[in-house]
Amino acid sequence: MNNHQNHPLFPIANPKSIAFYGASNNYGSMGTMLLASLLGGGYEGKVYPVHLKEDQVQGLKAYRTIQDVPEIPDLVIMILPNKVVCPIMEECGEKGIQHAIVVSGGFKEIGGIGIELEKELAEITERYGIKILGPNCIGISNPHHKMNPTPFPLEGPPGFIGIASQSGSFITQMINYLARLNIGFSTGFSIGNGLNTNLVDCLTYFADCPHTRVIALYVEGIPDGEEFIKVARAVSVKKPIVAYYIGGSEAGKRAGFSHTGSMAGPDELYDGMFRQAGIIRAHSISELFDFCWALGQLPKPRGNRVVILSHSGGPGASAADSCNRSGFEIAPLSEATQQKVAEYVPHTGSFNNPIDLTFFRQPQDFFKTIPNLVLEDPETDILMVYFLNPATMMARPMANYGITGEEAEKQIKDIFDNNCNMFAEVMNKHDKPIVGFSFRSLDEYLERNLIARGLPIFPDPQRAAAALGALQTYHHLRDQILADDSE
Amino acid sequence: MNNHQNHPLFPIANPKSIAFYGASNNYGSMGTMLLASLLGGGYEGKVYPVHLKEDQVQGLKAYRTIQDVPEIPDLVIMILPNKVVCPIMEECGEKGIQHAIVVSGGFKEIGGIGIELEKELAEITERYGIKILGPNCIGISNPHHKMNPTPFPLEGPPGFIGIASQSGSFITQMINYLARLNIGFSTGFSIGNGLNTNLVDCLTYFADCPHTRVIALYVEGIPDGEEFIKVARAVSVKKPIVAYYIGGSEAGKRAGFSHTGSMAGPDELYDGMFRQAGIIRAHSISELFDFCWALGQLPKPRGNRVVILSHSGGPGASAADSCNRSGFEIAPLSEATQQKVAEYVPHTGSFNNPIDLTFFRQPQDFFKTIPNLVLEDPETDILMVYFLNPATMMARPMANYGITGEEAEKQIKDIFDNNCNMFAEVMNKHDKPIVGFSFRSLDEYLERNLIARGLPIFPDPQRAAAALGALQTYHHLRDQILADDSE
Repeated sequence: MNNHQNHPLFPIANPKSIAFYGASNNYGSMGTMLLASLLGGGYEGKVYPVHLKEDQVQGLKAYRTIQDVPEIPDLVIMILPNKVVCPIMEECGEKGIQHAIVVSGGFKEIGGIGIELEKELAEITERYGIKILGPNCIGISNPHHKMNPTPFPLEGPPGFIGIASQSGSFITQMINYLARLNIGFSTGFSIGNGLNTNLVDCLTYFADCPHTRVIALYVEGIPDGEEFIKVARAVSVKKPIVAYYIGGSEAGKRAGFSHTGSMAGPDELYDGMFRQAGIIRAHSISELFDFCWALGQLPKPRGNRVVILSHSGGPGASAADSCNRSGFEIAPLSEATQQKVAEYVPHTGSFNNPIDLTFFRQPQDFFKTIPNLVLEDPETDILMVYFLNPATMMARPMANYGITGEEAEKQIKDIFDNNCNMFAEVMNKHDKPIVGFSFRSLDEYLERNLIARGLPIFPDPQRAAAALGALQTYHHLRDQILADDSE
Repeated sequence: MNNHQNHPLFPIANPKSIAFYGASNNYGSMGTMLLASLLGGGYEGKVYPVHLKEDQVQGLKAYRTIQDVPEIPDLVIMILPNKVVCPIMEECGEKGIQHAIVVSGGFKEIGGIGIELEKELAEITERYGIKILGPNCIGISNPHHKMNPTPFPLEGPPGFIGIASQSGSFITQMINYLARLNIGFSTGFSIGNGLNTNLVDCLTYFADCPHTRVIALYVEGIPDGEEFIKVARAVSVKKPIVAYYIGGSEAGKRAGFSHTGSMAGPDELYDGMFRQAGIIRAHSISELFDFCWALGQLPKPRGNRVVILSHSGGPGASAADSCNRSGFEIAPLSEATQQKVAEYVPHTGSFNNPIDLTFFRQPQDFFKTIPNLVLEDPETDILMVYFLNPATMMARPMANYGITGEEAEKQIKDIFDNNCNMFAEVMNKHDKPIVGFSFRSLDEYLERNLIARGLPIFPDPQRAAAALGALQTYHHLRDQILADDSE
């Protein structure tokens, strides 16, 4: 077994067998919904529903008690009333179960009796050595293992963003959000009240997870800052970490406290902590995933000179302004490159930077020749490209030439495949960051396929520029940490 | 005729007849594409293609010269080589045509000969009293008149955002963007080089346009600041104006200059100009339309106290933090309202602000009862609601109860219609701003219908909060202008 498989969270994210409490055949209940989601997602391990009365739950043989289950499951999942959790955990401990997800709320976040219950739960799990995710969480979503006992179904291919979150919503409800961008989670941990699994555990898990290229954190408050910085600093030089912290405003602090009982601190404190740890801070959910996308996909930029390629003036100008405001230089192309590029730019266009073709003469110019010329120039550090051409635009002239229906669809698909192949060649040839932006749906054929080839495409040039800014900042922080540590 | 119909731009945006130069039966050309778009969009007026050789263009009778056209068309549209534009404009002037769109580029934006050609065009249009949009523009898009001779087709219902833009892309390419949010343009003017139609003309047009509730500007540079401030200040007290200005950065300034030959100025200058004119500044295309959405739909807030309603902790907390950072107060509910709301909040939830139901007991609680209780409280100025429930979530339990296919679809639709009706009632009952946010596609059934009823729903709480901030700023500026002007 390698490091990763030895990690205490590995059986929680990749269990071979699960005991499931709280699911029945009543489809109004949360527990039932979560089991239905797990089974619907194609989970391939064994599932043992435990139910006091039913013989079958959702088509599976049900067991009266955990003692009746014919093996020691890797994991137990509980969606039970808060007062039942402790005695059941005790039984699971006796059975020899080492890993648990407690979805149930009603612990320290509600105060009073909840605090007592959480203490008791801590005592039991410590006594039996049980690693527990929660309570008051949504658990885990690991699309690579088809392991998703969360309310929302898996969508799209498994991805490369590992997320650890103090909100379950930001795991399960974001599956659809990311799928619409054609990206996805490697694995998501909802830590809830964080009884004995916290953000730090997730960081060390992701550090060795082969599917994870970048780590996202949703943070309401970090109880042990020193430990967090130490671990995050070691992880962030291996994989970028982006944190969305909401506890720095008065309202965010209060909301986080009633949500997960988290103790927050002022922005300055967290900014300092993140900086020391090499972590990039995001200020919204969109930004969190935008930054993860860029950081998970792009190589280190050699400098801050961006070249913009467009076939529309306004989007090009808007990208130039946004890049400039994010700290990038949009310098005119070098004389030599200008001369080479000029050949492919119509007289109504511009080979200033942005390069604005105003229209395509040949797709090859836009998807291959010009990007190559620009990226071969040592004065180009980053390329940003505007994507626009929807299939509908090509269908009309074809229809007027009598090419319709399936034949038109096939021809358009071939053109897009060809464009995509040309551009993927460019991406592979140059070890420089390339990003796209588009105001169209990222689910259109060309965009979806470029994204699948590894190109981040953002829905606004300002977001593309901000994501490049995060990439730049990450590498500055990382270089600093590496320099400090080697002193 | 009212003011609006007397406006010099009225026949350009609402022509009853059009002479069209530059379209043929060769579907590779720009002119052909634009005519095809006009016809494909269902334009109901007369169209007279003028073509030297063809007898028919796209199924319409074509005319050798403008003199052969059997009436004086309201408008002429030209997509012609730059050197041909002046002689043709002369012929159109002789014919008696008073309005023109010149799409052709190759004028002052290319320098040299282009500057000469633009001078000559100015002389001709002045001599004949022709009002001209362009040159170097994409012209007009008026979905209310089915008048869209731009490259991208109309989509979705006509909207309420009037845009005047120095980029044609930000009109035609945004039709799809807005349609995906379920909003749209009232009319878009692409002014290009702005020979004798500039942003100021568009402002006065929109001021009286009955379809326009808010005005968007994409600005690369404003030649006559004094005139602009004077007019915009008078218009902005009637209808909000939002400007996206890209000339304030070095790169934006240079890009704008090579795009439309615009002379830009520093940010401070434009910020001051906008403030004096009561204009809200946006910093990206997304923000431009986010702000327009809120400003076009929402009443004036009485104060800055926002209540957040959610059934998920993380999104609620994130909204609280975002609102706070946009200058809003997220105070706990008043004692009296807390007591009333508590009845509808499960024990796992919170009736702190954010109100977090954690799940629905009855849709009525979320879509009607709680919003009404909150909005009846004089301490609530604004309500922000998180929308989440996708049809797929309801389909699964139904399927398990044997309700599938059409019957399930019908039942889900009925539930959503009912939720939507309840919430629309709330919106109509209270004269307070209400906004939504959701991480799902805004094209899902519930969201699409709530938007159609007038609710702005943003794809991130941070964007919702920023849009509310713009609403607040607009009313502060407006109140200031009204106070100043009454002194």
